[in-house]
Amino acid sequence: MPTVSPPADPEADPRVRAVFDDIRATRGSTFINNFWRYLAFDADLLAQTWAEVKAVMATPSALDPKVKEMIYAAVSAANACDYCAHSHLAAARAKGMTPAEQADLFRVLALAGKTNHLANAIRPPVDAEFLQSSHIHGKTDP
Amino acid sequence: MPTVSPPADPEADPRVRAVFDDIRATRGSTFINNFWRYLAFDADLLAQTWAEVKAVMATPSALDPKVKEMIYAAVSAANACDYCAHSHLAAARAKGMTPAEQADLFRVLALAGKTNHLANAIRPPVDAEFLQSSHIHGKTDP
Amino acid sequence: MPTVSPPADPEADPRVRAVFDDIRATRGSTFINNFWRYLAFDADLLAQTWAEVKAVMATPSALDPKVKEMIYAAVSAANACDYCAHSHLAAARAKGMTPAEQADLFRVLALAGKTNHLANAIRPPVDAEFLQSSHIHGKTDP
Amino acid sequence: MPTVSPPADPEADPRVRAVFDDIRATRGSTFINNFWRYLAFDADLLAQTWAEVKAVMATPSALDPKVKEMIYAAVSAANACDYCAHSHLAAARAKGMTPAEQADLFRVLALAGKTNHLANAIRPPVDAEFLQSSHIHGKTDP
Amino acid sequence: MPTVSPPADPEADPRVRAVFDDIRATRGSTFINNFWRYLAFDADLLAQTWAEVKAVMATPSALDPKVKEMIYAAVSAANACDYCAHSHLAAARAKGMTPAEQADLFRVLALAGKTNHLANAIRPPVDAEFLQSSHIHGKTDP
Amino acid sequence: MPTVSPPADPEADPRVRAVFDDIRATRGSTFINNFWRYLAFDADLLAQTWAEVKAVMATPSALDPKVKEMIYAAVSAANACDYCAHSHLAAARAKGMTPAEQADLFRVLALAGKTNHLANAIRPPVDAEFLQSSHIHGKTDP
Repeated sequence: MPTVSPPADPEADPRVRAVFDDIRATRGSTFINNFWRYLAFDADLLAQTWAEVKAVMATPSALDPKVKEMIYAAVSAANACDYCAHSHLAAARAKGMTPAEQADLFRVLALAGKTNHLANAIRPPVDAEFLQSSHIHGKTDP
Repeated sequence: MPTVSPPADPEADPRVRAVFDDIRATRGSTFINNFWRYLAFDADLLAQTWAEVKAVMATPSALDPKVKEMIYAAVSAANACDYCAHSHLAAARAKGMTPAEQADLFRVLALAGKTNHLANAIRPPVDAEFLQSSHIHGKTDP
Repeated sequence: MPTVSPPADPEADPRVRAVFDDIRATRGSTFINNFWRYLAFDADLLAQTWAEVKAVMATPSALDPKVKEMIYAAVSAANACDYCAHSHLAAARAKGMTPAEQADLFRVLALAGKTNHLANAIRPPVDAEFLQSSHIHGKTDP
Repeated sequence: MPTVSPPADPEADPRVRAVFDDIRATRGSTFINNFWRYLAFDADLLAQTWAEVKAVMATPSALDPKVKEMIYAAVSAANACDYCAHSHLAAARAKGMTPAEQADLFRVLALAGKTNHLANAIRPPVDAEFLQSSHIHGKTDP
Repeated sequence: MPTVSPPADPEADPRVRAVFDDIRATRGSTFINNFWRYLAFDADLLAQTWAEVKAVMATPSALDPKVKEMIYAAVSAANACDYCAHSHLAAARAKGMTPAEQADLFRVLALAGKTNHLANAIRPPVDAEFLQSSHIHGKTDP
Repeated sequence: MPTVSPPADPEADPRVRAVFDDIRATRGSTFINNFWRYLAFDADLLAQTWAEVKAVMATPSALDPKVKEMIYAAVSAANACDYCAHSHLAAARAKGMTPAEQADLFRVLALAGKTNHLANAIRPPVDAEFLQSSHIHGKTDP
């Protein structure tokens, strides 16, 4: 159950219309998912959030778009964000994530959950060597 | 300040010695970071955890080792694990993460933190389309 | 799906009855929301929790009741507590939160989620100046 | 210990200089706190983040600036962000938060932590009434 | 709504069949809960996860099985894991957790949520005495 | 670095004195740890928090005091509360937690971290059987 009511006819607001048009054009799809439809309750918040998502996720950058979606999905699961885990796993699949890559993602996510809890209980001192990572060869450390 | 005391001479225990030897051999380095040194307070927990880290992070799999470390680091930051964020950012750098890739990682992490909080406040219904992601073309959605 | 079963007739227990009566009197409403109805599975836990909620949230104090509900709702979203985000956003609206204030709340919540993740990845040293905040004029810092 | 190294002379980069100048002008202070100094490792991330902080926190809006900092600080504590809890409590004090208001903030934060955990264990169904909050009078519910 | 599709006939894969058989034998029950049924989307992840769950939760060790399930349930609620809170509270009940013990568990969980948030806002220095806990008699401190 | 300044002479305030006296009497020790010393910045918050800690942790109840401290410590690690993980592991040790029990606690905590992340990514439907846990025999499920 959502906490806000989306506008009955969101695109009656030209600012919402402009964002939705840009979402459709950027994606090459007519599908507007619920996050944006509900966020339209405030046109300014919608516009600002979409601008950032577009800049970070839909603009060519150092990392592969699929990898960015996988990182996004992993953080979303760590934050117990149901909606976001769904939307970003779907986006990663749409961008080419294979079943084997998804299983790998889940393995890393699960292992991180495990060692994060261990390290937050044990509280080992941070190694000074971590700042001089050029000295660290082939590391696989948690 | 750690919550447990590592053994004074951890490698006096042959089970610890075997794990440390395998860490050194796997990494091709003599450096044993504090996570393992403190975890040696229980040889069984040490051995089980290292076996899993080695299997997931140091064994060839669908994802690139660098990408796996970046996902690990992002989850660690989401979980506020100071030690783990340090160790996995260092490991990602050791495996070739460039400054531009690190900045990209931080951008995705920050954006996920933002939209995870928004979606956990708004609670939009999960779109049925997410399960049929073959229908979703070029998605960049949060 | 709840993990506990609420009593079939909770007010048959006079301790539960006393708490429910006080909830109704404090709110001037006959509505008892599910949190209290399910918490009635243990009358002591119900009574202790309600006493604290009443003392903090329904007793005049330095902060405005509406502001307290907004802080409560923001923390609830950060903690991925679906029920609590719903109940405290509703309570804030009941206490006068306008749509513009709710959008502002969401903006701050989203920005905090973003910079919390960034700072937990970057781990900048805490500035000594923060303890001498009388020296900090007009700050807007994350 | 930070995970990135800030530039030795950050303002040698004109984009960083422009952001730092705007931070100083917006705050009317020469103090640049460490979050910005370390974030300068990537001028684009710095500029984007500052632009959003300025828009949300330093621009007049529906909520009082002090209230916005208090919400920010509460979310930061919920997210275990050490740096952010420090910086936003300092900012709230700089904007007029009294000791009594800070104690109130901590009381609400602590109570939210408590009932968030309870509700995430009990998982009561979300009441349909929460969407019709005009029917909810004087609510103080968790 | 799940993010992955479980195999239509998971036990057609002999590796899945072997794990399910071991789950049934270990529990003395024909019931396979959904976590395992969905995890069967990747036989390797299923096998590795079950092996660890069996080793930690179904093998005699220093702590009582019921206590281990209660700790598991408490961590799951803290992590806002709906499924896990349900499954581990059910498991604790199956292993003898009484209603009074469950109420006690919830009281400790709620109190921890409260003081964790307080301490993460106040950030008191960690007492050196905590490492010399033989000097601490009858402590009940948060 | 703490975010609040503790009173220079906290026991000059008779309300603080009364709480500190009760802490000392309850524990049979002269040691007052920093959480209470810093919380004394607000005598009311101090008194309310101590009263709850004493009621839950220092009053005989269904669960063993040592077990309650172990649950508290596990939740604290899950919440990344450095201070609380330290104080409650120390308290558990003071109440008799053995090294083997601590290792067991860490194993359960780590496994919960792992499967919580997995389940929050996979989102399997909650089994209806969990509410009828009398039908579940010898379960060890995540």
